[in-house]
Amino acid sequence: MARVAVGIDVGGTKALGLLVASDGRVLAHAQRRTPHDNSDVVGSATAVVLGELAIELCASLDLDPALTPIGLGLPGLLRRDGRLAFAPNLRAASGSDLGAQVGEMLSSSLVFSDNDANCAALAEHEWGAARGIDDFVMVTLGTGIGGGLFADGHLVRGRSGFAGEIGHMVVQARGAPCLCGGYGCWERYVSGGGLHRLTSEAAVSGRLPTLVARRGNAALVSGEDVTAAARENLEEAVLLVKEIGWWLALGMANLAAILDTGHFVVGGGLSLESDLVLPAARAYLDDLVEGHDARPSITVTPSMFTARSGAMGAALVAMERA
Amino acid sequence: MARVAVGIDVGGTKALGLLVASDGRVLAHAQRRTPHDNSDVVGSATAVVLGELAIELCASLDLDPALTPIGLGLPGLLRRDGRLAFAPNLRAASGSDLGAQVGEMLSSSLVFSDNDANCAALAEHEWGAARGIDDFVMVTLGTGIGGGLFADGHLVRGRSGFAGEIGHMVVQARGAPCLCGGYGCWERYVSGGGLHRLTSEAAVSGRLPTLVARRGNAALVSGEDVTAAARENLEEAVLLVKEIGWWLALGMANLAAILDTGHFVVGGGLSLESDLVLPAARAYLDDLVEGHDARPSITVTPSMFTARSGAMGAALVAMERA
Repeated sequence: MARVAVGIDVGGTKALGLLVASDGRVLAHAQRRTPHDNSDVVGSATAVVLGELAIELCASLDLDPALTPIGLGLPGLLRRDGRLAFAPNLRAASGSDLGAQVGEMLSSSLVFSDNDANCAALAEHEWGAARGIDDFVMVTLGTGIGGGLFADGHLVRGRSGFAGEIGHMVVQARGAPCLCGGYGCWERYVSGGGLHRLTSEAAVSGRLPTLVARRGNAALVSGEDVTAAARENLEEAVLLVKEIGWWLALGMANLAAILDTGHFVVGGGLSLESDLVLPAARAYLDDLVEGHDARPSITVTPSMFTARSGAMGAALVAMERA
Repeated sequence: MARVAVGIDVGGTKALGLLVASDGRVLAHAQRRTPHDNSDVVGSATAVVLGELAIELCASLDLDPALTPIGLGLPGLLRRDGRLAFAPNLRAASGSDLGAQVGEMLSSSLVFSDNDANCAALAEHEWGAARGIDDFVMVTLGTGIGGGLFADGHLVRGRSGFAGEIGHMVVQARGAPCLCGGYGCWERYVSGGGLHRLTSEAAVSGRLPTLVARRGNAALVSGEDVTAAARENLEEAVLLVKEIGWWLALGMANLAAILDTGHFVVGGGLSLESDLVLPAARAYLDDLVEGHDARPSITVTPSMFTARSGAMGAALVAMERA
């Protein structure tokens, strides 16, 4: 295994790059806005930004970017050959092979790509909240929900490398419409988007009277208003957070039944609210799992690296494959 | 690997035993009713019946039961150490270690246990409908739904060995009550029990007028009436079969999103109706899977060994572990 690598978590808004040592220490970090590529070659503007980020990180330790392993954590359906098959949050690069493009730019054969939630799971397993745990699921709560599945000590990849699309597990048949084209997907009830949707519904239906009064208009009440008010123990907000915790627990109970998962690590943007949401989810989880009396208890912990786990895992992927 | 083994699929009603060669040929078969054990030692009456079955099968080829590998396929949550932790369909043996009990009876150290749906998956992977396929899910439609998951060429077992409880994935939050204590579990909408429930609902709500007229009473219309009438192309029955196919596809779409499963093998009792249900499920499946345009198509085939796959897989487990 290489002793140091660059890891870049490529999100729809920004790309976070880290220079990581093989013991998990972060040696340098840098960030760029993700471009909205209108160039002829799909993904090429994105690749330029990622290449520049890698060069900047390598320069901080005087490393040669052509000889330093570089890992990319990419959102969406990433094929085993490195091509992004479907990336609703990174449309400019959908269909591209960003790893190959960055490799060409840097004259490097050491650029590797993996799914961003897989990267997060790998980082938590190697250095973080899932160290020594063979069966766990990484749940990343962002705009949607991403997932990385560990079973029997291995990351589950599936036929084309697309495994882990847990946010699109339907938990409410014919339920709320989802951006994926389906209905009732789990991420419509949890995640940033789910919080937003449940907040709007609750505000309009009169279940958030204090927050609506504060904003003057139901349409102006945001998910952030709800989490902030829940911290002040405003009951209407606490109830909504509990509802989100229930939905989070419901999907985790499904995954536990399917995979016999003993441990969940929750990361992503919304995990910054994990001190609010996770206790609610934990309170419901055991009761929701089939045969819970016969099962050892299931643990739920926040990600150790929060917003950095994707980039750290991308670096780990590069170290291991280089 | 041993060249021949006994495999016994232990169901709630009957135990099916097979003597199987390592190339998958069935050399002998026998069957017993599963006892409802009221003895002092949990599972002991069941163990006696299973031991007798093994002795009978071995005798057919003049094999020594103490030296012939014996596999048991058991329903419910089977711990990795061989103990049944939770077996709603085999309550008499719940909490027992049937493998150890049968081994003691036969003075054999070659008795091995595995979950019945896992056994079915292993048999289909080795000799049947999933030969050469690394990522597939075995779906057994019986009274409920059982599952065996293959990911990256390996059976997924999970933390305690309980993986594959796919029937208790919730697809309708706060939906129909399930025997497991939960609500909206997948098996409430498919499986034998699901067919029964949907039939009753449809009969009472006036969606099966012809079948109700035939029986004289909505309460007397059975799931078998529906499948038989669907074979005669009675439209009201065909519509109900399509509805079951839709629910079957919905759960498979969830599993495909989570695991990136490319192939489903459908077995179990209700799979005898697979010529009716599977075409309906196939028609809906691709549309229900997230990112379906970017995915290779998903195949759904009936089990090659139908009601025998559990016993064949139990024999395979014994051959491999002996």
